[in-house]
Amino acid sequence: MQSKLRLIAAAALCGTALAATAATAQEIKIGVSIPAATHGWTGGVNWHAEQAMARLEAANPNIDIILMAADGPAQQANDLEDLVSIHQIDALVVLPFESEPLTDPVRMVKQSGAFITVVDRGLAQEGIEDVYVAGNNTALGAVSGEYFRERLGEGDNIVVLRGIPTVIDDERFNAFMETIEGSGITVLDNQYANWNRDDGFEVMQDFLSRFPDIDGVWAQDDDIALGVIEAVRQANREDEMFIVGGAGMKEIIQMVMEGSELVPVDVLYPPAMIATAMDITVNHFTSNGPVSGEYILGAPLITPDNAETYYFPDSTF
Amino acid sequence: MQSKLRLIAAAALCGTALAATAATAQEIKIGVSIPAATHGWTGGVNWHAEQAMARLEAANPNIDIILMAADGPAQQANDLEDLVSIHQIDALVVLPFESEPLTDPVRMVKQSGAFITVVDRGLAQEGIEDVYVAGNNTALGAVSGEYFRERLGEGDNIVVLRGIPTVIDDERFNAFMETIEGSGITVLDNQYANWNRDDGFEVMQDFLSRFPDIDGVWAQDDDIALGVIEAVRQANREDEMFIVGGAGMKEIIQMVMEGSELVPVDVLYPPAMIATAMDITVNHFTSNGPVSGEYILGAPLITPDNAETYYFPDSTF
Repeated sequence: MQSKLRLIAAAALCGTALAATAATAQEIKIGVSIPAATHGWTGGVNWHAEQAMARLEAANPNIDIILMAADGPAQQANDLEDLVSIHQIDALVVLPFESEPLTDPVRMVKQSGAFITVVDRGLAQEGIEDVYVAGNNTALGAVSGEYFRERLGEGDNIVVLRGIPTVIDDERFNAFMETIEGSGITVLDNQYANWNRDDGFEVMQDFLSRFPDIDGVWAQDDDIALGVIEAVRQANREDEMFIVGGAGMKEIIQMVMEGSELVPVDVLYPPAMIATAMDITVNHFTSNGPVSGEYILGAPLITPDNAETYYFPDSTF
Repeated sequence: MQSKLRLIAAAALCGTALAATAATAQEIKIGVSIPAATHGWTGGVNWHAEQAMARLEAANPNIDIILMAADGPAQQANDLEDLVSIHQIDALVVLPFESEPLTDPVRMVKQSGAFITVVDRGLAQEGIEDVYVAGNNTALGAVSGEYFRERLGEGDNIVVLRGIPTVIDDERFNAFMETIEGSGITVLDNQYANWNRDDGFEVMQDFLSRFPDIDGVWAQDDDIALGVIEAVRQANREDEMFIVGGAGMKEIIQMVMEGSELVPVDVLYPPAMIATAMDITVNHFTSNGPVSGEYILGAPLITPDNAETYYFPDSTF
């Protein structure tokens, strides 16, 4: 009965509302400013932003999304100026290239009256944005550590590859180390691999040459993990250990889906968070629910059971 | 050009897709379990849940929302069982009556495979829900405190009415007291008024009889504030002080909108958060963006400038 009513309503809408939609609904302009696809993860950000734009514009005829990808902080600051002066946006979704140089430009957009959603990298000053959407680096470390505790114990050895020396890396690493404390697992060494495939390969080659017995590798990042996988395969030691990355890169998710023993799981730090941020920003204009606040996404363990949910084969990442 | 394309796409959809929508789209059932409208704030929760249900079902023909309001924890536990066994829901949005007695029933829903969104009152055990949506009591206290600092200073006197002795009340009160520290404002007294209009009236009558000079009242809650307003008016002292509540009750918002000097602002702790939680749960099935995580809504200051955004004249609250 309920769905029948809905069909009748939809049919009525189709008969009369096409012209009205374009003519009467107030147009809302949302600017989305993100870094260009300079590496794997931002490639994913770009792809998911485009997907979300197409979906949200199709579902909301009065919403116009202007997506701009910047090659650096200076260009992103210019993009923000254009979004205000040329496009006169009602809201901004921004994943800042860097915190410091984008803080004043975003404040300028705020002062124009636009609703502000900041994604992933916070600004250098609190209180400018209306919503903050981000991943959870502490949870990423803890969820990874819990998986190692389940798989390994007393007498087992692991190596750890870190990112770039930053707060993000410290949060991940410290949470991981705290979580495996008391498990009996020995961390043979940890080295920075700069969230980079080539560095992951080199660091792992060094670990392989120094340590004859490795049961697990925490690579904490899927780009690093790709380099680690290559080094382990070249050394013909893929039956000896498992590797855990982090992010949700499609090549890694595919291995998890296929039941790989070398890469049995992944931990989510999703570039698709840009889509979450865009959804919420649209909701600010369409929902009776409030959206201002802080939305910290979880870092769920991706296993063969749930991998499909996180697999986007058409994405670059 | 873009909107023209959209019109063409919409026209094409109208020609062919009406039957297909009903026939092919997989039906998704979302259960929403909330307390019945036993007092003002939960009245608002019920109203906003109904609004969100109508909006989300209209926008998503394949989504069926089953809304159940419970008179107590036992009935809510029964509702949850029915949502699983009779309705076979794919997702649950639940605002638990109380944390302890609902923890096992919600876990049971989770074990059925449903996606779980918990709102406002957390469960007694972590890790059961996929998303947690809640207000921010610390921010509510701090934002209120900042307003008092702006309005008052050295030599000014205020009184504070508290809620029910709970963690929530402590968070609000402590944040308020920390924020006004060093402002020179004197807190003449603070007393519990149990988030209740009658108690607010009685406590304020007592304050009025004991203190001849009161510049401001922090009532922290709009139900309490209604009682305070009545007591102040009966004492003919409404020109002497201002009153700040909290929540976003329509009567209070209306006073703010009209530029009342007695109730110049309010601080948001929105019953409409149930709608935010329903939006996100629908996004879990429709968006490419992830939704699992923790979404803590802000406690913005409601002023004459922005009051309209938070004013729902048809709501009971």
